[in-house]
Amino acid sequence: MKLTDISVVFDRLFPICRSITGPGLRESLDILAEYIPLTIHGVASGTKVLDWKVPQEWAVDEARLIGPDGQVVCDFTDHNLHLVNYSIPFTGRMTLDELQPHLYSLPHLPDLIPYVTSYYSPRWGFCLPHRQRKALPEGEYQVDIRTRHYDGEVNFATATLPGESDEVVLISSYLCHPSMANNELSGPLGLLRLYELLAARPNRRFTYMFLLCPETLGSITFLSRFAADLKPKLHAGLVMTCLGGPESKLSMKLSRRDWLNRPGPFDCLARHLAEMAPDRYELRTFTPTSGSDERQFCSPGFDWPVIQASRTVYGNYAEYHTSGDDRQFMRIEQVEAAAHQLSSFLETAEMQGHALINYHPFGEPQLGRRDLYPSVNSPMNRDQSNDNSVDQRETLNRLLMLLSLADGTRDLIACAQKIGCASDELLPILRELFTKDMLVTRAFQEKEAV
Amino acid sequence: MKLTDISVVFDRLFPICRSITGPGLRESLDILAEYIPLTIHGVASGTKVLDWKVPQEWAVDEARLIGPDGQVVCDFTDHNLHLVNYSIPFTGRMTLDELQPHLYSLPHLPDLIPYVTSYYSPRWGFCLPHRQRKALPEGEYQVDIRTRHYDGEVNFATATLPGESDEVVLISSYLCHPSMANNELSGPLGLLRLYELLAARPNRRFTYMFLLCPETLGSITFLSRFAADLKPKLHAGLVMTCLGGPESKLSMKLSRRDWLNRPGPFDCLARHLAEMAPDRYELRTFTPTSGSDERQFCSPGFDWPVIQASRTVYGNYAEYHTSGDDRQFMRIEQVEAAAHQLSSFLETAEMQGHALINYHPFGEPQLGRRDLYPSVNSPMNRDQSNDNSVDQRETLNRLLMLLSLADGTRDLIACAQKIGCASDELLPILRELFTKDMLVTRAFQEKEAV
Amino acid sequence: MKLTDISVVFDRLFPICRSITGPGLRESLDILAEYIPLTIHGVASGTKVLDWKVPQEWAVDEARLIGPDGQVVCDFTDHNLHLVNYSIPFTGRMTLDELQPHLYSLPHLPDLIPYVTSYYSPRWGFCLPHRQRKALPEGEYQVDIRTRHYDGEVNFATATLPGESDEVVLISSYLCHPSMANNELSGPLGLLRLYELLAARPNRRFTYMFLLCPETLGSITFLSRFAADLKPKLHAGLVMTCLGGPESKLSMKLSRRDWLNRPGPFDCLARHLAEMAPDRYELRTFTPTSGSDERQFCSPGFDWPVIQASRTVYGNYAEYHTSGDDRQFMRIEQVEAAAHQLSSFLETAEMQGHALINYHPFGEPQLGRRDLYPSVNSPMNRDQSNDNSVDQRETLNRLLMLLSLADGTRDLIACAQKIGCASDELLPILRELFTKDMLVTRAFQEKEAV
Repeated sequence: MKLTDISVVFDRLFPICRSITGPGLRESLDILAEYIPLTIHGVASGTKVLDWKVPQEWAVDEARLIGPDGQVVCDFTDHNLHLVNYSIPFTGRMTLDELQPHLYSLPHLPDLIPYVTSYYSPRWGFCLPHRQRKALPEGEYQVDIRTRHYDGEVNFATATLPGESDEVVLISSYLCHPSMANNELSGPLGLLRLYELLAARPNRRFTYMFLLCPETLGSITFLSRFAADLKPKLHAGLVMTCLGGPESKLSMKLSRRDWLNRPGPFDCLARHLAEMAPDRYELRTFTPTSGSDERQFCSPGFDWPVIQASRTVYGNYAEYHTSGDDRQFMRIEQVEAAAHQLSSFLETAEMQGHALINYHPFGEPQLGRRDLYPSVNSPMNRDQSNDNSVDQRETLNRLLMLLSLADGTRDLIACAQKIGCASDELLPILRELFTKDMLVTRAFQEKEAV
Repeated sequence: MKLTDISVVFDRLFPICRSITGPGLRESLDILAEYIPLTIHGVASGTKVLDWKVPQEWAVDEARLIGPDGQVVCDFTDHNLHLVNYSIPFTGRMTLDELQPHLYSLPHLPDLIPYVTSYYSPRWGFCLPHRQRKALPEGEYQVDIRTRHYDGEVNFATATLPGESDEVVLISSYLCHPSMANNELSGPLGLLRLYELLAARPNRRFTYMFLLCPETLGSITFLSRFAADLKPKLHAGLVMTCLGGPESKLSMKLSRRDWLNRPGPFDCLARHLAEMAPDRYELRTFTPTSGSDERQFCSPGFDWPVIQASRTVYGNYAEYHTSGDDRQFMRIEQVEAAAHQLSSFLETAEMQGHALINYHPFGEPQLGRRDLYPSVNSPMNRDQSNDNSVDQRETLNRLLMLLSLADGTRDLIACAQKIGCASDELLPILRELFTKDMLVTRAFQEKEAV
Repeated sequence: MKLTDISVVFDRLFPICRSITGPGLRESLDILAEYIPLTIHGVASGTKVLDWKVPQEWAVDEARLIGPDGQVVCDFTDHNLHLVNYSIPFTGRMTLDELQPHLYSLPHLPDLIPYVTSYYSPRWGFCLPHRQRKALPEGEYQVDIRTRHYDGEVNFATATLPGESDEVVLISSYLCHPSMANNELSGPLGLLRLYELLAARPNRRFTYMFLLCPETLGSITFLSRFAADLKPKLHAGLVMTCLGGPESKLSMKLSRRDWLNRPGPFDCLARHLAEMAPDRYELRTFTPTSGSDERQFCSPGFDWPVIQASRTVYGNYAEYHTSGDDRQFMRIEQVEAAAHQLSSFLETAEMQGHALINYHPFGEPQLGRRDLYPSVNSPMNRDQSNDNSVDQRETLNRLLMLLSLADGTRDLIACAQKIGCASDELLPILRELFTKDMLVTRAFQEKEAV
């Protein structure tokens, strides 16, 4: 399997000034379409989408702030965070006092440029390091913001990987932030890698639908177009965001359904893994008050079983929404690892709802003649405490428990939960039992589904 | 709203010698009928009421104990606790040794007169401070108890406040203890005030039925007459007792149904409030072994969802059932506060079983154009830690959670429980969402009721 | 009631060399049939029983190991643990090095002979104290093992005590270990005593079926013959093992059904008793990985509600499966006590599923005229803290709670659970209430059964 070098894709996407609409967004989607067979969609400005209206496109021709002595204070071409995103155009001269309400900086992070947006209220402004701002001299400043808002469209992109079943798993990430790495490029890049890993695996159970869109507006627009069609086929969904950074675990934000005690399949699996493999997974409760596009998928009218996976979560790190959220902070290998972990998550999810059935359920099966049991029974066997023997004993215990649990009423995840280990740890035993014709699986009837 | 000065009513009721029957009980009910439009009922002595029989009335003409040197040891006219309540008549002379079995005092509270009753076994006796008893000289004592037991009736009183629905909430307190304040005058006085507060509130959902009766016998007699009629209309009930004293919280004794895992609506609300507002509410589990008239309403044959509210609970304070339980211990303002808190409790209870419904459930509603959301989004907004900003953020969070939860399957209490606050704290947000046409309510169908 | 002196039976059974088949097993069953009216069953070698095949019988004619200087190292006639159980015959001479793989000893218990079996793989070997083994001189050893494997049968025995109902309770223990006391003679001896205690009690509700068999193979054979017939009548079952030793509590291993959240009646009772009488009972979760015949009864194809009772549990004591597990370790009186405790357990189990019904459920019953209540009510009654008064108050509380709970929807165990005491502690109150016509019982309908 030939995998893309996602660091190359990172370097192409990072410098582009994206917003929720406009040429930066389209350019970014076009680049990703070179790696994933994306279909790019557009919906015209002014179109009503759910409770919202598609805004105009936004383009930046120039944005500069010149100081009293002619020196450049901020220039959009140096860093596109310098300009308040979706800023209206403005040209004029003013004193420092008059300028101050249009400047944004962070006193507690004096060397970083903050990321500021004003999509729904017309504003202009510059963002700059607080240290630089405090050193600004009195005098007259020249503001030169040449941006354009014009009727166009909002864009998003989809791709589909077919599987054995029509059941769809939705995988989404967002693309609307300029020049930041963990939030946001880790999301689309992780999605790219996950696409490749799933594409390479044969016998996929689910059909996977991928979505890349500007956050909030994009998913709302997607829902206004695709929800009716997708709903009857949707099995579950996963929003990918902030998959880089220093944290070692994946943090799963559960769905609204889980919050309201009607967990979906991915909620159940994430809960199982966080309990049994706490070194690899942790949980966050659903909340509509912060997060990403899962807030739309999980709004009460849709109430989809969509979870969100993150590593170093938005808002939980100082560099969030600043120029400090760069490639060095994000680390490409952390994004890689997240994609692999989510690929395993989905592989295990494909075993949900498939009951394990013991072929020899009456009495303990004779393991000895199947070469699954030590033939001599003495206190010594039990007292041997070298690691190998302990491992063998533990494996035998898990095998016996699996056979006891495999009565056609529970799947691998339920068995692992009862045994007290993560479901993926049971796969080698499962394979041996399949080989020796001691175990089979069967899909639950619809009404019995987990 | 003009409220009665309940301290005046206290001073009229306190000196009366009440018992479970007789003129003191009737006089007390007549006084309360000046403030609440009470209907006074009587059931003749000897009538079988459930498993009991209405006892004779009891009246005291005189009760004095005279010492060897002619000094008055106890005189009923000094304090009606001096005489064992429901005492039989007795006149005679005897030594101190012969007298001792008829004297009652408290060694651990040597200055207080205990309250002793003997309703169901014929006895006579005097109650006095232990210090006084220990100083009694040897010699001959003159006992002069002139009481009468005669056929009459047991009395109780009811009043009804109609509401929008026929569903009845039963509010009861008891009146049979002589000259004690927290247990018992705090109960009828709190009931009086609660009657006034409910009467003053428009759009009452429930019909409120008020009951004042002698404890145990009175509620048993009431049930023998009213239970069949009341049962099909009963929503829930509340027994008021011991609402004064030093404790700051209301202590809710839950119903037998709650004990047996079939909580009634007031149980659910009390549990919610005790969890979310532990500074205002605490819980007691139902028990049939001690308490007040809820033991009758919750007996297994009736099994009504009736809770009991108390502040400084019977048996939990040293002055209980002694002359130390006086107006100073009780404090009028604590009874006032209890009545107001119970009035809020009932107001919130009227929202139970009414689902909240979000009018814009598909995707996040656009809060900005409804002036419900800050229009600029930057790291500064989130970092502002002045109190006002934190409050605003918390209010916005609660608003977003309420909109997410308002899917027609849960009422205000369930939403508050999920949000993690007391239901009454959400009322201001609720009103704003009603005003902006974002939320409506609808009664659950019977079978869906909480 | 004349009870057998089980120490006599112990002394007859202890020296016999039992195995899973053969003359030692038959001789042991014959001895026990002198005390219990056992029917002894045989199934021929080679017969397929569930997933297993009945093995050949095994008989020992002689087994000796002679050292280089002619001294006897091990002789089967000294202790039948010296020979690996089910050992194949072997005669020959060999060096100490060649002999070592056939010797079994315990370095951590150098004075004890281990118990080693090799039923399913042909092996020969000797077991001896490690101290003796380390002192063995170099030189040539003479091995003389004359054992025979031959077609015969596997044996097990059953007995039935009829009861009022056809519902069967299965009581089993096993008999296949040579010359060890806690594991195993405590099991059959405890079963003998339990048989006698149940036989002596009139009005047994259940029909009790007793089973004695070699472990694993015996219960598998029993199931292959009796399961189809027994299944529709089976109420619950109990495996008795390791009932001696120093531990003070009975340890109940719950059934597979309990493990999978569908507890059977004995699971429920054991859970109740372990919670309310933790000085007498403790619990073990079901596991198929270790244990006794409950592993067969609870295999997923049968899934019977069979629990296992033990005192000093197999594997939890150093002497387990060694010559140190002798009569001194086991102690006859501990086996006696276990049988009595299990007899009480079964007596209480016979009350499961029989609802208690209060005859006077409307209002509190008048306890006074039934002489169930103190007639004078004063603060003194409540403050008396002498033990007698506290006991009386506690008894009255339990009586009032029982009357409140006895509404026809729960049995004695459920009432005790709610009251917070062990169900057997309520029996005296229950009898008083029966006597005074205040309480009756009625069997639940099938579908309501606990």
